[in-house]
Amino acid sequence: MAYNSIILRLELTLNQVSFGDVASAISKAGGDITSIDIIRPGQEVTVRDVTVQVADTAETAVVEAIKSLEGIRLVNVSDRTFLAHLGGKISVQPTLPIKNRDDLSIVYTPGVARVCTAIHEDPQKAYSLTIKRNTVAVVTDGTAVLGLGDIGPHAAAPVMEGKAMLFKQLAGVDAFPICLDTQDTEEIIRTIKAISPIFGGINLEDISSPRCFEIETRLNEELDIPIFHDDQHGTAIVVIAGLLNALKVVGKRMDQVRVVVNGIGAAGVSICKMLLAAGVKRLVPVDREGAIIRGGEYAHHPMWAWLAEQPQVEANPGSLRDIIRGADVFIGVSRGGLLNGSDVQKMAPNSIVFAMANPVPEIDPKEALPHVRVFATGRSDYPNQINNVLVFPGIFRGALDCRAREINEPMKLAAARAIASVVSENELNDQYIIPSIFNEQVVTKVRNAVVEAAILTGVSRRIPPDFR
Amino acid sequence: MAYNSIILRLELTLNQVSFGDVASAISKAGGDITSIDIIRPGQEVTVRDVTVQVADTAETAVVEAIKSLEGIRLVNVSDRTFLAHLGGKISVQPTLPIKNRDDLSIVYTPGVARVCTAIHEDPQKAYSLTIKRNTVAVVTDGTAVLGLGDIGPHAAAPVMEGKAMLFKQLAGVDAFPICLDTQDTEEIIRTIKAISPIFGGINLEDISSPRCFEIETRLNEELDIPIFHDDQHGTAIVVIAGLLNALKVVGKRMDQVRVVVNGIGAAGVSICKMLLAAGVKRLVPVDREGAIIRGGEYAHHPMWAWLAEQPQVEANPGSLRDIIRGADVFIGVSRGGLLNGSDVQKMAPNSIVFAMANPVPEIDPKEALPHVRVFATGRSDYPNQINNVLVFPGIFRGALDCRAREINEPMKLAAARAIASVVSENELNDQYIIPSIFNEQVVTKVRNAVVEAAILTGVSRRIPPDFR
Repeated sequence: MAYNSIILRLELTLNQVSFGDVASAISKAGGDITSIDIIRPGQEVTVRDVTVQVADTAETAVVEAIKSLEGIRLVNVSDRTFLAHLGGKISVQPTLPIKNRDDLSIVYTPGVARVCTAIHEDPQKAYSLTIKRNTVAVVTDGTAVLGLGDIGPHAAAPVMEGKAMLFKQLAGVDAFPICLDTQDTEEIIRTIKAISPIFGGINLEDISSPRCFEIETRLNEELDIPIFHDDQHGTAIVVIAGLLNALKVVGKRMDQVRVVVNGIGAAGVSICKMLLAAGVKRLVPVDREGAIIRGGEYAHHPMWAWLAEQPQVEANPGSLRDIIRGADVFIGVSRGGLLNGSDVQKMAPNSIVFAMANPVPEIDPKEALPHVRVFATGRSDYPNQINNVLVFPGIFRGALDCRAREINEPMKLAAARAIASVVSENELNDQYIIPSIFNEQVVTKVRNAVVEAAILTGVSRRIPPDFR
Repeated sequence: MAYNSIILRLELTLNQVSFGDVASAISKAGGDITSIDIIRPGQEVTVRDVTVQVADTAETAVVEAIKSLEGIRLVNVSDRTFLAHLGGKISVQPTLPIKNRDDLSIVYTPGVARVCTAIHEDPQKAYSLTIKRNTVAVVTDGTAVLGLGDIGPHAAAPVMEGKAMLFKQLAGVDAFPICLDTQDTEEIIRTIKAISPIFGGINLEDISSPRCFEIETRLNEELDIPIFHDDQHGTAIVVIAGLLNALKVVGKRMDQVRVVVNGIGAAGVSICKMLLAAGVKRLVPVDREGAIIRGGEYAHHPMWAWLAEQPQVEANPGSLRDIIRGADVFIGVSRGGLLNGSDVQKMAPNSIVFAMANPVPEIDPKEALPHVRVFATGRSDYPNQINNVLVFPGIFRGALDCRAREINEPMKLAAARAIASVVSENELNDQYIIPSIFNEQVVTKVRNAVVEAAILTGVSRRIPPDFR
């Protein structure tokens, strides 16, 4: 259930109605008053802004309840979410003012010509003399946005702008949204390559599977700046981080557990790959048709075919309900309500369930909790929120600081381990396996781990001063 | 000759050398001290930063002169221009902070989903709920940058960033540089179309002729946001603005004068078109091979062929030196040093010469001034600087404010008339036909004129509040 925050501007005629009447009507209709601002005070008539937290299903009821009161005029209903979006959520600012002709001749003609010439003679100077050093494109084609699906590039923009805000606020990275008016794989690859010179990295976002695999792979091969499809790797990294800590809580080891991953799309594929890299020896990928098995034929889906070749993938077919029996770990990146309490009851003792379908998890938390030792979701209203906001700011901060050519598997695993390490041994428990996105250690630890891994794997082009 | 500003950090041992010795050595070597900062004071040893304005040809001489003095240690030489470019000249900022989970759920998931849905249902809402309303792409392929030519997309970036700074500072427009790693006309058109959804307008920049014509024409046809190639139309608009006022000074009329335009590339074509639109009846376009004449065959160059069909274009062939004889107006957007004093002496009385080749004008100002009534250049070290910084901020401010579908000829002419109108009748004289780019009236007047013209020609999609 989604909650909105609405602002009601009310004119009260005080001999006909009291504010207490208003508050009680709002409460009865299902609203929760969170703040009041007096816009115009008065002995007889007063105007107030009342901010109300309300389930979106109850919004109409609250408005109707207000309207039905005598002595009240409802001047206006504003929605805090829409108000916050008016005019967009980012702006472009000069880093220094142009106060006079002398300033102008430095940042623009004629002075700028010497800077252009210096970059023309040595293109690597773009990293010191332009915004490339700190700038990432957040690129989408609008085909797989949140739970909304293919809503197109214009409608995807608010998510990309939100991401750009988080990049700046959490990691000081300048990010700019690029929303593509094409869904053709080759056209997307060509376009991103064509616009790449000003960017130090590319964050792919909300591009539907399986096109996202080809797009990312090709860009990785054809560009020398890091490419990162957040829906795949951001999710996988934070899942591995959570799993590292969950295994500590239950006292099991990565190479011992049997892991079921349900939903083998963009995120599921990347999770499976990272689980294998992290040492998992018994893996069961499951999609709508059931288990993807070792030795199976998946010519229609290259990534499934790749999984079927891995020795750690089990060879027994079966539906999700069959397969989950005896599993130590269930990781869902699929659809809501696939499992019930008796399904997870059949898992091995001290089971770990990450039910990350959004907004409705694969299993209702109330059904799961009695049978599961560590339970996590993608939601903020339960403990253990698996949220990729933990990943992308720090991973790009690190990649930009060392001018990494790519973000490789060791860098991703280093990021996962860094996130896990933010929760100390004595803080760790069933309810706290993953830090909050507002935990100030996260970005620094991820950045440092990513820089270290980039240097060790030879993909860095600069050693940051604090690593010299 | 280009001047740089360098900063010398000097350590002076005061019983061996005085600051007077330093100042005198710098002056003798051709440098001009513009400021001094004491970094470390001291009775015996002192460290100072000395900012010196110096012709780039004399920079080495200044440094050597300092080094040859006893009792001086040259700690460091910094270049103010390069210092100003470190890390780039623009940044991306959130318009509001994300302080806590409540804020996050408004600007990002889950709240943002309702905003996305609203735009998906009505794409025009992108103008109110995303940055589209105020955001322009500054797009180049790096093929015709300043006087430097084809220096590529990385080296072009500092100019585009400088332009983005000017857009924000002068007109509050958010502009983002897009530097294309392709020179193929079709690929450029496809790429700009693909990235267009987040932008409210496209400023094309430093794209070489003749590709720039096709690119602009096609984008105008295929996109519903304004496209403006600044090198063509920015230059043409400010030329027309200057000419309107110059004609007032000399007491001639647009429909009476004979105008020679030299250099029929991107800017020259647009200038010719605007001159015709402004009422010129006798026009001689000239390029390297001489006059482009009415009825001539120019199959290799569609824009020249178009000019050859216009009844106002003269039919007599000839070289620039022949053609300029008896002309009232010469407009050069070509190469330095093509003309001398005796050439302009042959023009009609009260002649007007705009010699805008950069950095060296078509005629040396010293040679021209004795024979010409109104003389203008593209440079800031002579009066009457013809600078397109006067145009693009206001023209896009206007186009964005009324959500114009395009920037059409009436809007361009309106902008030119608005710029001219900033110089009042009693201020107007030979030396002052065009306002300074720092004149605060310019952007407002251009914006208002452009909005008005857009509404009158039916290309606006919104009436700004101050026009209702």
